[in-house]
Amino acid sequence: MTGGGRREALARRLRLYVLTDEGLSRGRPTDQVVAEAIAGGATAIQLRGKDWGGRRLVEVGRRLRELTREAGVLFFVNDRLDVALAVGADGVHLGQDDLPLAEARRVAGPDFLIGISVEDEAQALAAEAGGADYLGVGAVFPTGSKADAGEPIGVVGLARIARRVRIPVVAIGGIHAGNAAEVVRAGAAGVAVISAVVAAPDVRAAARALLDAVEAAAG
Amino acid sequence: MTGGGRREALARRLRLYVLTDEGLSRGRPTDQVVAEAIAGGATAIQLRGKDWGGRRLVEVGRRLRELTREAGVLFFVNDRLDVALAVGADGVHLGQDDLPLAEARRVAGPDFLIGISVEDEAQALAAEAGGADYLGVGAVFPTGSKADAGEPIGVVGLARIARRVRIPVVAIGGIHAGNAAEVVRAGAAGVAVISAVVAAPDVRAAARALLDAVEAAAG
Ligand code: NI
Repeated sequence: MTGGGRREALARRLRLYVLTDEGLSRGRPTDQVVAEAIAGGATAIQLRGKDWGGRRLVEVGRRLRELTREAGVLFFVNDRLDVALAVGADGVHLGQDDLPLAEARRVAGPDFLIGISVEDEAQALAAEAGGADYLGVGAVFPTGSKADAGEPIGVVGLARIARRVRIPVVAIGGIHAGNAAEVVRAGAAGVAVISAVVAAPDVRAAARALLDAVEAAAG
Repeated sequence: MTGGGRREALARRLRLYVLTDEGLSRGRPTDQVVAEAIAGGATAIQLRGKDWGGRRLVEVGRRLRELTREAGVLFFVNDRLDVALAVGADGVHLGQDDLPLAEARRVAGPDFLIGISVEDEAQALAAEAGGADYLGVGAVFPTGSKADAGEPIGVVGLARIARRVRIPVVAIGGIHAGNAAEVVRAGAAGVAVISAVVAAPDVRAAARALLDAVEAAAG
């Protein structure tokens, strides 16, 4: 495949990207929530456990790797490249304070997927030039899920960034079924959500509604 | 070299193992403290930054890798195997809640050094059987440095563990120049210290006094 073909194939697998957060999951274990999210149509899963040690991340990560592999869903680990490699994840997702992209790429090799969180055009261009496979762009809307999120960039900020890069852009921050179409029309390949799925009483239905909204807008 | 020869060579490089802790370093930056510790005779350095992101760990880790390489001192990173690989450390040090040994070995390869924290014989035997290169055993004495340290095992507990394994044992927890000889006589190849060195007004002199005590006892 050409680079463009590979980017398009990846973009299709990033349409509904669900981040885990056991603290927001109404007491349900992460693997159960992920199984429901996949049943509802999630196309990518990211394991997050900011206060978890490596042992717990590996234990849960192994279960998520099984679930995602069986379903053909992409599996990423947040921040911890070592955990991602240990469980055979498809990739790692790195924030601006995490392992630098160049070092992560050198350790992980060329075929491992690396996503980078960006909140402005300068960060987006640097990540693309540095070999990121996709960008997590936001926060688009106000959100309570991520303590470190800055001022929302809005749909206009998202569109400005999406226009400047060729790698897929996943929009994050305050996205739900009611505004997902808007961010896709602004140029996002997909939407990343935490509480809109993992905190929903019916995880499967919440994922399904989001995927429907994204697919309708993506055409 | 035989396994035994390799173990002995490693043991000699673990005689004075200094763990960093910028919060205990009296306002001095970690690289300055490490340079002084090496000047005083530290034979191994471990970068610890429990609240640091991967980017900061890599930045400081690169500087420590330079300092240790120039001095022929071993360099380990605590917990984060990805950071250790990214900066070209000699090894990683893992606690019981960190990345499991088997996964770490698989990711890091056979030649990378892996140390494991243990506090009893069962953990020590499991780590040795799993391919650990050395053990950090403790806490030997009461200590204020590590919030997660359990009841001290004492010199008797240390000796009991050291007798059961063939890989080098580094004693940790409340060790200073006044009791270092005692732990070496109990079977430790070396001593691991945090505040006894990094919090000392004269880091170099503190390291020198510890190394002298270890070497006198080791013969
Ligand atoms: Ni192609």
